[in-house]
Amino acid sequence: MDESAKISAAKRLAIIRGHLNKVIDMVSDDAYCPDVIHQSQAIQAALKNVDEIILHGHLHHCVLKDIHEKGSKKEKLINEILDVFSKQT
Amino acid sequence: MDESAKISAAKRLAIIRGHLNKVIDMVSDDAYCPDVIHQSQAIQAALKNVDEIILHGHLHHCVLKDIHEKGSKKEKLINEILDVFSKQT
Amino acid sequence: MDESAKISAAKRLAIIRGHLNKVIDMVSDDAYCPDVIHQSQAIQAALKNVDEIILHGHLHHCVLKDIHEKGSKKEKLINEILDVFSKQT
Amino acid sequence: MDESAKISAAKRLAIIRGHLNKVIDMVSDDAYCPDVIHQSQAIQAALKNVDEIILHGHLHHCVLKDIHEKGSKKEKLINEILDVFSKQT
Repeated sequence: MDESAKISAAKRLAIIRGHLNKVIDMVSDDAYCPDVIHQSQAIQAALKNVDEIILHGHLHHCVLKDIHEKGSKKEKLINEILDVFSKQT
Repeated sequence: MDESAKISAAKRLAIIRGHLNKVIDMVSDDAYCPDVIHQSQAIQAALKNVDEIILHGHLHHCVLKDIHEKGSKKEKLINEILDVFSKQT
Repeated sequence: MDESAKISAAKRLAIIRGHLNKVIDMVSDDAYCPDVIHQSQAIQAALKNVDEIILHGHLHHCVLKDIHEKGSKKEKLINEILDVFSKQT
Repeated sequence: MDESAKISAAKRLAIIRGHLNKVIDMVSDDAYCPDVIHQSQAIQAALKNVDEIILHGHLHHCVLKDIHEKGSKKEKLINEILDVFSKQT
């Protein structure tokens, strides 16, 4: 992973962990159900955002480099991208 | 929240926290990007599952009770359900 | 379905059919792939919007009425709402 | 678009148009709301499937070719893939 994507992803994941801890507390404190679900949906959106950052770094650094250097890995690289796309909720 | 939904949601959220910690480690250990994204997508799917458990409890316990007892809250309850639906990614 | 939801949904679905026909033409005319996918994603978002309109009408008219009048149907109504939520992409 | 992706996408889009027409009829015939929503959600899933077919062809044919031949287009190609990913519902 390139360094700027790594730093940005790590920072966001730390914030997401804080939000997840908050959701865990909300459930244990009997918070109002729709409020809990909204927090959970916000975490999902934030994780999707991290995925985009990581994918951006991946396409720029790993994919471009490997597509040039190692022809045999192309199919694998492309299938990985498609797989990421198809599992996107 | 009803007790069984609460226990089930809490248990799953604890597991999700473990997975999130694993993703954080993967980023810090320079794991392969598509692998990180897959773990993140699995967490998103698991959180969506928790949302369904909470919504199930909410519809059965809060909504059914409040729709009967307090006519004025109906609109709010329904808008909350729609809101949860529309924010679903 | 209540009349205003029905009219609004029908109008939007007619527009969506027009967009779908455009996507079909784009594929047959060898349009640029990302452009085709964007149009398809716009249709998916528009259909999700129709779902919300229909669900809104359903919650207001069918669910509220039936939850009051027919106790035995409650479970079915709630499971249908959960099902709609869980199939949401 | 490569020919096999084009044929497969066109065939699926024609089927989707049939399903969309059915949804339009369901609304006009006052079909039960959750049934209409399920059909709409099935169409959305089918369109997502078409997107994957088109993206597969795009990555294999356009992207691989253009990444090799035209260095200046790389950024554009990658941003298009990320854009498709981020708009995925």
